[in-house]
Amino acid sequence: MNEDICGRCRPVIEGVVPQVDGGRFPIKRSVGERVVVEADCFVDGHDALGCALCYRLEGDRQWREAPMVFVGNDRWRGEFRTETCGRYLYSVQCWVDPFASWRRDFAKRVEAEQDLSVALQMGEDLVQDAAARAHDGDAGALADWAARLAGNASVAERAAWALDEGLDRAMGRYPRRDLASTYERELVCVVDPPLARFSAWYELFPRSTSPEPGRHGTFRDCEARLPYVASMGFDVLYLPPIHPIGLTFRKGPNNSLSTGHGDPGSPWALGSPAGGHTAVHPELGTLGDFRRLVAKARALGLEVALDVAFQCSPDHPWVSEHPEWFVQRPDGTIQYAENPPKKYQDIYPLNFESEDWQSLWEALRGVFLFWLDQGVRCFRVDNPHTKSLHFWEWVIGEIKRTSPETLFLAEAFTRPKLMHRLAKAGFTQSYNYFPWRNTKWELTQYLTEVTKEAGREYFRANLWPNTPDILPEYLQLGGRPAFAIRLVLAATMGASYGIYGPAFELCENRPREPGSEEYLDSEKYQLRTWDPERPDSLKDLIRRVNQIRRESSALQSDWSLRFHPIDNEQLIAYSKRDEEGDNAVLVVVNLDPHHVQRGWVDLPLEELGVKAHQPYQMHDLLGGIRYLWSGPHNYVELDPAVAPAHVFRLRRRVRTEQDFDYYF
Amino acid sequence: MNEDICGRCRPVIEGVVPQVDGGRFPIKRSVGERVVVEADCFVDGHDALGCALCYRLEGDRQWREAPMVFVGNDRWRGEFRTETCGRYLYSVQCWVDPFASWRRDFAKRVEAEQDLSVALQMGEDLVQDAAARAHDGDAGALADWAARLAGNASVAERAAWALDEGLDRAMGRYPRRDLASTYERELVCVVDPPLARFSAWYELFPRSTSPEPGRHGTFRDCEARLPYVASMGFDVLYLPPIHPIGLTFRKGPNNSLSTGHGDPGSPWALGSPAGGHTAVHPELGTLGDFRRLVAKARALGLEVALDVAFQCSPDHPWVSEHPEWFVQRPDGTIQYAENPPKKYQDIYPLNFESEDWQSLWEALRGVFLFWLDQGVRCFRVDNPHTKSLHFWEWVIGEIKRTSPETLFLAEAFTRPKLMHRLAKAGFTQSYNYFPWRNTKWELTQYLTEVTKEAGREYFRANLWPNTPDILPEYLQLGGRPAFAIRLVLAATMGASYGIYGPAFELCENRPREPGSEEYLDSEKYQLRTWDPERPDSLKDLIRRVNQIRRESSALQSDWSLRFHPIDNEQLIAYSKRDEEGDNAVLVVVNLDPHHVQRGWVDLPLEELGVKAHQPYQMHDLLGGIRYLWSGPHNYVELDPAVAPAHVFRLRRRVRTEQDFDYYF
Repeated sequence: MNEDICGRCRPVIEGVVPQVDGGRFPIKRSVGERVVVEADCFVDGHDALGCALCYRLEGDRQWREAPMVFVGNDRWRGEFRTETCGRYLYSVQCWVDPFASWRRDFAKRVEAEQDLSVALQMGEDLVQDAAARAHDGDAGALADWAARLAGNASVAERAAWALDEGLDRAMGRYPRRDLASTYERELVCVVDPPLARFSAWYELFPRSTSPEPGRHGTFRDCEARLPYVASMGFDVLYLPPIHPIGLTFRKGPNNSLSTGHGDPGSPWALGSPAGGHTAVHPELGTLGDFRRLVAKARALGLEVALDVAFQCSPDHPWVSEHPEWFVQRPDGTIQYAENPPKKYQDIYPLNFESEDWQSLWEALRGVFLFWLDQGVRCFRVDNPHTKSLHFWEWVIGEIKRTSPETLFLAEAFTRPKLMHRLAKAGFTQSYNYFPWRNTKWELTQYLTEVTKEAGREYFRANLWPNTPDILPEYLQLGGRPAFAIRLVLAATMGASYGIYGPAFELCENRPREPGSEEYLDSEKYQLRTWDPERPDSLKDLIRRVNQIRRESSALQSDWSLRFHPIDNEQLIAYSKRDEEGDNAVLVVVNLDPHHVQRGWVDLPLEELGVKAHQPYQMHDLLGGIRYLWSGPHNYVELDPAVAPAHVFRLRRRVRTEQDFDYYF
Repeated sequence: MNEDICGRCRPVIEGVVPQVDGGRFPIKRSVGERVVVEADCFVDGHDALGCALCYRLEGDRQWREAPMVFVGNDRWRGEFRTETCGRYLYSVQCWVDPFASWRRDFAKRVEAEQDLSVALQMGEDLVQDAAARAHDGDAGALADWAARLAGNASVAERAAWALDEGLDRAMGRYPRRDLASTYERELVCVVDPPLARFSAWYELFPRSTSPEPGRHGTFRDCEARLPYVASMGFDVLYLPPIHPIGLTFRKGPNNSLSTGHGDPGSPWALGSPAGGHTAVHPELGTLGDFRRLVAKARALGLEVALDVAFQCSPDHPWVSEHPEWFVQRPDGTIQYAENPPKKYQDIYPLNFESEDWQSLWEALRGVFLFWLDQGVRCFRVDNPHTKSLHFWEWVIGEIKRTSPETLFLAEAFTRPKLMHRLAKAGFTQSYNYFPWRNTKWELTQYLTEVTKEAGREYFRANLWPNTPDILPEYLQLGGRPAFAIRLVLAATMGASYGIYGPAFELCENRPREPGSEEYLDSEKYQLRTWDPERPDSLKDLIRRVNQIRRESSALQSDWSLRFHPIDNEQLIAYSKRDEEGDNAVLVVVNLDPHHVQRGWVDLPLEELGVKAHQPYQMHDLLGGIRYLWSGPHNYVELDPAVAPAHVFRLRRRVRTEQDFDYYF
């Protein structure tokens, strides 16, 4: 017989949620979010049970506890609130509660007028036991209760004491738990900074921030652009790779194979004799300039995110120092990236099957550690789906062990299972299929999947209408209204979203060629000069949208997203609410960038806290206009040339019986 | 860095099904059944993969393998067939297949007319590598292929060889697997005897088998009844407890508290000075008589199942020998069973929280071992939900470790989570809610849950229309037709079913009092005399139904059960098919025991293998009549007074162009 089993511990605990793949991967929360845990807890027979949710920050010795309450069908629920970045452990404990069983049965005995003498003795024993476990005043109080149950008073009097609610409450504080069962797994919750849940990202190429056309921009130029970015209300400024760029097979404008003198090359063809992943491209400035940029940005409320692209140009120092980290071809050369028949000779992939994989992993971890030392806290990882998944799980775990506030955004434009696995492996946020979800059906299906299905426990979507690699057809063809539409969708459907600017706000929409999602004259291969003050810029709309996001707690998380029927395929309606239900936002967007669209939206008033026959105010935070609606069906009309969306705050009227309604 | 990780092994494996609670519990199959395994297998990047399903009988040293094939969206599928009772382990292995990647890319290079020299060298290296792994003739053959790729033939010729399918097949037999990943869990499949999947049970009280009214039946009387039970086509003869019956607080007829002289008592008030769980009630005969009964039954194709009720009458030897196995009350007495205000003073429950739990567990295991030694292979466990769940998991594991063909039927009439947990803990089959599912909606919902939801991997339902404790209202009120209806439902919806007879076939339907499910003059408390040859007996129907079950492979498993629309709430239609689809049975039952009901049934012809405009024969195996149906909609009419059901075998016509159709 296995001596390890506590055969006397009878309760069982199963069906514990949330958990990912049987506890193989952590769930994720941000600081301040709740972890609501449910479990099936039951025992043979008819004994009453008690349950507790146990949790602690990894490293703390002491478990903390939150009560779990019975919610029916043997299911129990409890919750705790996360307080700090790091890894929380949680599990469930369940015990037979003899006093609760005894009390339940005792009440029936009293009602059936049975002889109570032995039952009273049993109750006294249980109270006596609890008194020995109790502390402070409770110990004496419980001993008193026990004495009363055993005393000389009449049976009726003692029976009344036995069922006293004060005794029940005191006993509830000291259940007998030496035979408690504990769920066999300790589950993990990774707690990230609030930015992991709610963030607005802005990407720009520092080398294009020079005000003088043709001059390579620098970190100093970029500094000058910071107030512009901050004024639009972004949280993160994300920079493409800032490292020396290779010369061998350097790509020219529009990805051409021939380069002219002065062509700057692609920042993703990373590494030159000037250095690799821990060096700064000389034309951008110095490491000191970079640190200054990070500090100036932070002073404006902007985190600088670096692009981590684990690949090398043929000129990267690692190529000569560590040829064993690359695939050797039979002709003695190093294998360049290719997708036959296409060749990418300016890029050498790292070989994660290298026999020297341990030193490779350590070097890559070193890249993150280096930039953490420079003050960087956010990383956008380039093509993580082409590097070993086990490596990501290890390196993100390593970094977050000492810097739990670090944020990793996965550029996981890949198949669904791989995209999700990267999130399970530890990436804080992920790019996703949003750029290609444009119709009402597509958006409804996809955002419902992202916000309602089991993957939401670990997968946090960051919605990007465009990136330097992706100029979607919708933006190519829809003109300025299309950009406004996609902005509102991204920023209100997603608590986290990002744009690649100034291309976005200046509505840059020329593809390299028809059918391509590449930009014509893409910044990836050449310098560009942008005029952020162009009168047709969307910057004011962006500023307003980001301001609304900051003022609306409903928009700061994703799980409450809910779509509402609207009788026009070109109009989409959805709402979000905050945890307390105090802040509710309804968004209606015209998905047609060319025509006015109108329709009737259908709202579940009861769920939104509005009484059936009570008018309610819809305050369009975007346009500033307030509408008085009543009933579930209301009319909307949106002209994309004017404003393609309403972002309504629902303001319930709380004192309709008064002359002057009070809105909150 | 954790040295245990093989950092070079890049593939990941997740989403492996079937598995129960993250592998915490085994799945179940019976001998000869397939285990179909699916998994998400993928790797970073674009390398081709190979996958295998690995399995072995626990105790075998060598893993066996079955191929897995790609089924889309990173999902792979493979299967193996179980061959023997016991515990199979299974897992999944996945590897990067460099030759498959190389071949795929090489074909593209050829098409793009690229230079092939380096690629040919790489191919040669891969073939050379495989030659070193190959055995028998393959080693030389692969070395020859390598030589040809490296040889002096033209590039075009060598390119054609490189893509030769013969080479591809040979390479497919020797993939490089030193960097393979293995799924992190070894999952378990418990393989039971075929009876676990397909069984017809018959319960009777041996003490009521005497042909002389008032005389206590014996095992010898029971022997005389065996041909009757066997002739009806049952597989298992289940006997209520055969042990000495307690005297203290012995119950009288109809559960009365007062007993008269000669009242035999309840067999579940178990144990007397004559012995306990390993003794035989003297009035039934001797242990030798019992062994003889088991042998005679087996000769007729009947397994004898014993009732295991782990509780004691106050007279059970354990009460004095092991008072520590019971709960002591403060007045020095032992706690009897009660559900206040009800008292069951004739029964002492065992205390699974006893400090001496280990000796208790061993004693209970000893009970099973004792009866296994007497030739018993099937146990029906009384009220398992009132005994420790951890105990069941341990004891069933212990018994099946040495006697894997043992079958445990759980009398788990309890809440759903507890019922399921008992099945997870190891019970082979389970009683369930069937007795109380009577309407079309109830039956459809419940049997769909049982046969389609995840629980089917471990939960095998055994459908009982009645038991000595349960005379459902439907049988009380519906007369003989109700018994016929419930018989057909149980025996055709469930591959395993059982009846409590002769009460069932003699349509015993008098409740102890209105609103009770107890039988009047229940055999639980008194002797009864039955006349199995009564002309109104359902025995001929039962014999026919069991014969149909044995002849119809479709009815011998449950997962294929499917309900079909029929436009009358009193008619229910469902079909089952065997794995190959050769045997298909459609059952239509009139649920109304009082009136003729008629309606149109709607069949998915294509799925049943019938062409849209081709007539097909429906052969009513119950009535013997053959109908020619065509199209999806066909008429049925059932008179409960004549025959409440059709059990059709679908016979497709395979040579309609001929004068004489050939049916199979």
